[in-house]
Amino acid sequence: MGVVTILPPSVSPGAAAGADALRALAALVGPDLAACNRSILAQMDSPVTLIPQLAAHIVAAGGKRLRPVLTLATAQLCGYRGTRHVALAACVEFIHTATLLHDDVVDESLLRRGLSSANAVFGNKASVLVGDFLFARAFQLMVSDGSLKVLGILSHAAATIAEGEVLQLVTQNDLSTSEERYLEVVRGKTAALFDAACRVGAVVADRPAEEEEALSAYGANLGMAFQLVDDALDYAADQQTLGKTVGDDFREGKITLPVLAAYHAGSKEERAFWVRTIEQSEQTDSDLDRALALMADRGAIAATLRHAGRFVAAAKAALYVFPDSPMRQALLDVADYTVQRHS
Amino acid sequence: MGVVTILPPSVSPGAAAGADALRALAALVGPDLAACNRSILAQMDSPVTLIPQLAAHIVAAGGKRLRPVLTLATAQLCGYRGTRHVALAACVEFIHTATLLHDDVVDESLLRRGLSSANAVFGNKASVLVGDFLFARAFQLMVSDGSLKVLGILSHAAATIAEGEVLQLVTQNDLSTSEERYLEVVRGKTAALFDAACRVGAVVADRPAEEEEALSAYGANLGMAFQLVDDALDYAADQQTLGKTVGDDFREGKITLPVLAAYHAGSKEERAFWVRTIEQSEQTDSDLDRALALMADRGAIAATLRHAGRFVAAAKAALYVFPDSPMRQALLDVADYTVQRHS
Repeated sequence: MGVVTILPPSVSPGAAAGADALRALAALVGPDLAACNRSILAQMDSPVTLIPQLAAHIVAAGGKRLRPVLTLATAQLCGYRGTRHVALAACVEFIHTATLLHDDVVDESLLRRGLSSANAVFGNKASVLVGDFLFARAFQLMVSDGSLKVLGILSHAAATIAEGEVLQLVTQNDLSTSEERYLEVVRGKTAALFDAACRVGAVVADRPAEEEEALSAYGANLGMAFQLVDDALDYAADQQTLGKTVGDDFREGKITLPVLAAYHAGSKEERAFWVRTIEQSEQTDSDLDRALALMADRGAIAATLRHAGRFVAAAKAALYVFPDSPMRQALLDVADYTVQRHS
Repeated sequence: MGVVTILPPSVSPGAAAGADALRALAALVGPDLAACNRSILAQMDSPVTLIPQLAAHIVAAGGKRLRPVLTLATAQLCGYRGTRHVALAACVEFIHTATLLHDDVVDESLLRRGLSSANAVFGNKASVLVGDFLFARAFQLMVSDGSLKVLGILSHAAATIAEGEVLQLVTQNDLSTSEERYLEVVRGKTAALFDAACRVGAVVADRPAEEEEALSAYGANLGMAFQLVDDALDYAADQQTLGKTVGDDFREGKITLPVLAAYHAGSKEERAFWVRTIEQSEQTDSDLDRALALMADRGAIAATLRHAGRFVAAAKAALYVFPDSPMRQALLDVADYTVQRHS
């Protein structure tokens, strides 16, 4: 698929390529990230052994730790010198993991990060309940930290995530969903936690409102870009490479930007195809291939990536209130990475 | 079934009968409870309309509001004169409701409080996500209240509830589960929130540790009794009257005290029956009737109620650090009510 070479115009050609940017950022917060990983393992423990077992399946299996890395990195960007950001980064990852576990139940997806999902291995019940445990444990950790401001930011994020997920449910199978409403879903289900993860960095460092808002804007826009690219990848990714099932969103009738773009740009006959497969959930074996072909023909993936590129540009612009530094550069590069990671 | 007339020895004969005790307690906190109900309705609102719709199905449909009433009543018992307990009682109800919604997903129960469950009407996905929203909203409310101590108590309770629910999952279908382990499950899934609901009453009133511990003990023991009776009712309740499906626990192979009592007191042939129906989940239409008959024969319900009675006695004993008052009497009567409500 030609998709993998299409880059939106806003991506600076000199940016660290692909996953290198994320590795560079992780390296800059290296010791903090190691401490955060230890905290995650310690805090997900419970005398009820199924909890660490199941949590390990998804938490310890790796993943990019992008959200906690953002908390660690933004705290460092703000000159923070203490240790509070480590536990708070673990909270951010716990909230993310709880969402993944509950999303597994919801979406019945079969693959996540290349492993069979916790849901497939342990069942729906356990996924819901262990998600609840991690969510509660995140709040216990925040209480230990003792900042009502941080508690406010992350409880607000958690409520917004749930609202976004419910809104996604409501728009499912509905091709009359506006692009605006789709973006609202993304703002909730993904951008809210990126936003909060970065805002917390400024808050622990006790920085002025301007910097807090700048990091919040960076995180929110980064999250939007990240999700838009994720939605594009669902119609483009190589399953072997990325450990993601291509077509999950298609099979679920999820309304995403690639679908809306292909639908709106499509012929009458193409629209009928989308109505049958997405709205009426009537799919045959060859429909996914047809969907991928239509998206390529109609430039739907490219349009989605261009849209993501605009969020990347906004994320990067927000960072310029901070002076130049290796950390700022790494955060700028990570913003570019979100759109490049499909290559 | 003769069960309904068996009362454990600890129930004082002069106690207000049945649901009258709960009505009396609710009357004592009348204006606060009305304010709490308004707070619940206001706080579960969201621009994502499915959230209040679904939440209303379970929150506004009524229920006894036992847990928030306990927060309001214990605060009043402690002489509290402010308004903080109203929002905190709403938090307690939100955490309870979130648990119910997630429990609906888990247990696939068809009836709850006489209405079809939210799950049956709106589906698994919505139940999980709206539960998450209410849980997050509870924490937002606590942050607005501003007490880290309260946040600590309720986040600890939330983690303990999840642990109890997971432990219940692990013991499911396992007749080798010890009574002790069963009680551990109940301590988590039910007693923890009763405990926290009552402890918060002392905390908002800023009472000394002795009173806080006394109310915590009252709540925890009340919760144990409440759940044991609930487990008995699952093999005894009249579905029409109580809006509960008799035999839910049986069909799910849930390990509860009535089952353990009947199993341990049973003949070899009876044990084989329990192994087949509970451990191997092989049930025919007539098996529930057989289970109910065996429980009656072996005094399993009576034994469960006697056990509940011991928790009622402990709950009542804890209250005697407080001077006599109409509120203390109402709380004593409610403890008796938990065991009498099956009549």
